[in-house]
Amino acid sequence: MSDLPAAVDILEEGPREGFQIEPGPISTADKIALIDALSATGLKRIQVASFVSPRLVPGWADAEGAVAGFTPRPGVEYVALWLNPKGMQRALAFRDRLAITGSISLSASEAFSKRNLNRDRAGQMEAMRQSIAAHAEAGVAVTRISLMAAFGCNFEGDVPVSRAIATLADGMALAAESGSRIDRVVLADTMGWANPAHVERLVGAVRERWPEPRLTLHLHDTRGLGIANAHAGLRMGVTAFDAAVGGMGGCPFAAHPGAPGNIATEELVFLCEELGIRTGVDLRALLETGALAERIVGRRLPSALLRGGALPRPRQPVSAGA
Amino acid sequence: MSDLPAAVDILEEGPREGFQIEPGPISTADKIALIDALSATGLKRIQVASFVSPRLVPGWADAEGAVAGFTPRPGVEYVALWLNPKGMQRALAFRDRLAITGSISLSASEAFSKRNLNRDRAGQMEAMRQSIAAHAEAGVAVTRISLMAAFGCNFEGDVPVSRAIATLADGMALAAESGSRIDRVVLADTMGWANPAHVERLVGAVRERWPEPRLTLHLHDTRGLGIANAHAGLRMGVTAFDAAVGGMGGCPFAAHPGAPGNIATEELVFLCEELGIRTGVDLRALLETGALAERIVGRRLPSALLRGGALPRPRQPVSAGA
Repeated sequence: MSDLPAAVDILEEGPREGFQIEPGPISTADKIALIDALSATGLKRIQVASFVSPRLVPGWADAEGAVAGFTPRPGVEYVALWLNPKGMQRALAFRDRLAITGSISLSASEAFSKRNLNRDRAGQMEAMRQSIAAHAEAGVAVTRISLMAAFGCNFEGDVPVSRAIATLADGMALAAESGSRIDRVVLADTMGWANPAHVERLVGAVRERWPEPRLTLHLHDTRGLGIANAHAGLRMGVTAFDAAVGGMGGCPFAAHPGAPGNIATEELVFLCEELGIRTGVDLRALLETGALAERIVGRRLPSALLRGGALPRPRQPVSAGA
Repeated sequence: MSDLPAAVDILEEGPREGFQIEPGPISTADKIALIDALSATGLKRIQVASFVSPRLVPGWADAEGAVAGFTPRPGVEYVALWLNPKGMQRALAFRDRLAITGSISLSASEAFSKRNLNRDRAGQMEAMRQSIAAHAEAGVAVTRISLMAAFGCNFEGDVPVSRAIATLADGMALAAESGSRIDRVVLADTMGWANPAHVERLVGAVRERWPEPRLTLHLHDTRGLGIANAHAGLRMGVTAFDAAVGGMGGCPFAAHPGAPGNIATEELVFLCEELGIRTGVDLRALLETGALAERIVGRRLPSALLRGGALPRPRQPVSAGA
């Protein structure tokens, strides 16, 4: 049949992705309410805030308030995003509440890197070298590489598997230089270019070259293939996924406003549970939290399942010659 | 690898599904404009109208006007829906413009049949027997069986493969009684209960029992798995799909208003083309037609790809060791 895993881990990115893009203003109390509701659904990892420039991302000017305000639930890991040493220092002030993981991020598309960060290939490498040094200075081990635009780029076009692998090899070399041990690789379909066959090829190629690090798929549903791509990942045995409740977050690179960004957590959970893959998440509680997210942002989120609703009657077990 | 087909046939159901459910009123001229725009995209089969009771479905009170008004394009087959002899007679008046195919429709869920048509299992069989007789009287061969609620039902719950097969066997027996030769079986996920594993199991079971008829999957995206389910069908070698531009149509059985109904034609086309499966459809023309459909119905349709847009740069061929 296939290599469907028995269970998957989901990193819930709704708060971080959503509140950075919503026009708002959204109150700190609402952000906290969403984080606390998410932690009650069975989700075990939640990205709660982004420590970025309040000038560039006004939606996260209150990152400190949100992180100080949520109620930590035992067994749930809370993480945050940062992009530079200053952001890292802001996160480190919450070491008691946040799981701190050092990470470097490379774009497989040079055009995307130039456009988004004004860095060519060499500039990107140099920035990551400095980032590793800053992490080391703060005593934070870099254990994770994120590969942005891993499947394609609106500005550059197709990203062949060979180029994704070459970029990842650059990151691995940087990590090795500094003695960092990478135990996680995140393949991010930043602009919605993946398709199921491409997911199979890239996951297979990364595994062949680097069998040890665990893979995370960060998939976007910008062009409607997000859940089919997640299913391709599951069939390849991938056990870690990023997702956002309701499909919060959107895509700034889409042709028209309102395009989905991250795959919706509840659709990923529904897919997994229907396939007999454990997520630990209570789907009905998650759908209620999706409805809360919609009330907070004041607009309809892209998730189909939020409209369609959970199966109203329990499914019979799928095995037993059904 | 898998049994991905080289090409698929798509029946475009947007006009029929969409205009029967939209509150409207929508002018006949707009319906005709959409049909003509669809026929210019490369789609080869379009379901253009529903000859049903104007009292029950006011949105299709002008079925005659729409069917008389579109401009037939050479190479495109136009079809219509009817549910009883009176509707069939209305369709037969347009024999010069419509491809007339006789079809019977059975529900794998008795609860759905009772609720929707007030017919139990025996009543459903009797109604189909009468329908075959009415077709015969009109000189229309019944060549097609549609299985509604083939994967599950909001009122009955899970529909095991064994029950779907038993219902289809009833239909095959009815057809055999009357000497009808069934060359097409449509498996309809009427209420959005399918998942990729279930698609594999049901398609496999139907093929094993009845190897000859061609299979069509009629999939709904009500719970977000529609395109993943279509991909499962493609991997099983299914070569015919129903779909609706923009995801027109919606689902009257969803938990909340605005849930998607049929999978969006453009997302199916995008999936196929990305996998190297020919559809004959010009994706950009289809996206423009989806935008036209949104202007006509005056609301946002569920398709993610309508928002995300086609890939802005051509993809490199997927083969060649990419």
